[in-house]
Amino acid sequence: MGDKYEEGVVDLLAALAYGELSAFDRLAEDARAAPTLTGRAALAKMAAAEMGHYRVLEEQLARRGATVETKMQPFVQAFDDFNESTAPHSWHESLVKAYVGDGLAADFYREIAEWLDPETKRIVLSVVDDTGHSAFAEREVLAACADDRTLRDKLALWGRRLLGEAVTQAQRVAAERDALSELIIRGSGDLTGIATLFRKLQSNHTKRMQRLGLA
Amino acid sequence: MGDKYEEGVVDLLAALAYGELSAFDRLAEDARAAPTLTGRAALAKMAAAEMGHYRVLEEQLARRGATVETKMQPFVQAFDDFNESTAPHSWHESLVKAYVGDGLAADFYREIAEWLDPETKRIVLSVVDDTGHSAFAEREVLAACADDRTLRDKLALWGRRLLGEAVTQAQRVAAERDALSELIIRGSGDLTGIATLFRKLQSNHTKRMQRLGLA
Repeated sequence: MGDKYEEGVVDLLAALAYGELSAFDRLAEDARAAPTLTGRAALAKMAAAEMGHYRVLEEQLARRGATVETKMQPFVQAFDDFNESTAPHSWHESLVKAYVGDGLAADFYREIAEWLDPETKRIVLSVVDDTGHSAFAEREVLAACADDRTLRDKLALWGRRLLGEAVTQAQRVAAERDALSELIIRGSGDLTGIATLFRKLQSNHTKRMQRLGLA
Repeated sequence: MGDKYEEGVVDLLAALAYGELSAFDRLAEDARAAPTLTGRAALAKMAAAEMGHYRVLEEQLARRGATVETKMQPFVQAFDDFNESTAPHSWHESLVKAYVGDGLAADFYREIAEWLDPETKRIVLSVVDDTGHSAFAEREVLAACADDRTLRDKLALWGRRLLGEAVTQAQRVAAERDALSELIIRGSGDLTGIATLFRKLQSNHTKRMQRLGLA
């Protein structure tokens, strides 16, 4: 499996870890702006679930002799830029972002997991598992858009923008991390494989938007 | 055990639940201001642990036919007032608040737990269990104060203020919630019992401040 592979895996786990910490932060902040205690608790639970995953990744990195805080550092900027460029302006934008963002990240990592050794694959799949909170976002967004065409159109555009910004940042990260991009290129086979990956992400994104009633 | 007892227990579990949600919020906000990724992750994990307890309380309330969001409502103001009046101005104030605040709350609920039926007692004790993160706060505060006498004095005053504000809010809540105050008065025996409870809180608080090197 080689040193380069191991290096790519550490990068991947570290990117996942910072993704969790960053999602925790974003969800916790959005929870504060929730219109009801139910909404606030729902987002706070989602945030807490991210930290559960973070612990798993921290432990996995430690087993590989890597310190999570050090290894996450190269990924801080891209995630922070993503969050800054997609700061929600309303409760419903927060919900769509939580739903679409988590879904996209999960899809991405699930695809990559297929190219990993069985043990690492199992870990990656376990931390991208849906924590069962997405039903809340679906319900809330569907209900809010039912009688509000303007909100629906706005949130549809919002969802599209989230996809664009996420892809931009993911490409930036991959380009800067040699071992990680090699892991992806080797796993997907060639550039056609990468194109297929992005088409899959796009198509799953569309399905998610449909479930929110936004496509 | 009577209806009044059951009502007091529901009040108690609901107050605990809002305390957890409120602590989650405060810790998540403070995590954002952490000077290092290690500190940020440490506080985020503490926040996540609070939501684990919240889930337990939500389930317990549901078993008693009560909805957590509705039952928490009467306690929102007191906790929010406490947090507003004790907003930390620095990373070390955040750490002392997390440490001292959680410790105080745990002591308070642990005392009350003694007066409850065995099943409720078990639940209450399980959610106030130290989640093992306090060692981080001790280490950080001790290290920061080692060569900084001014910081130590400031944080010592800060700890004293936290105790005062917490007691004020706890007394307000108890006074407003009939069933809850009855549970406390009956449990402690009489007004002497309540005085003993407060003395114990004070004495444990002093021990905690000592462990932080602030007393």
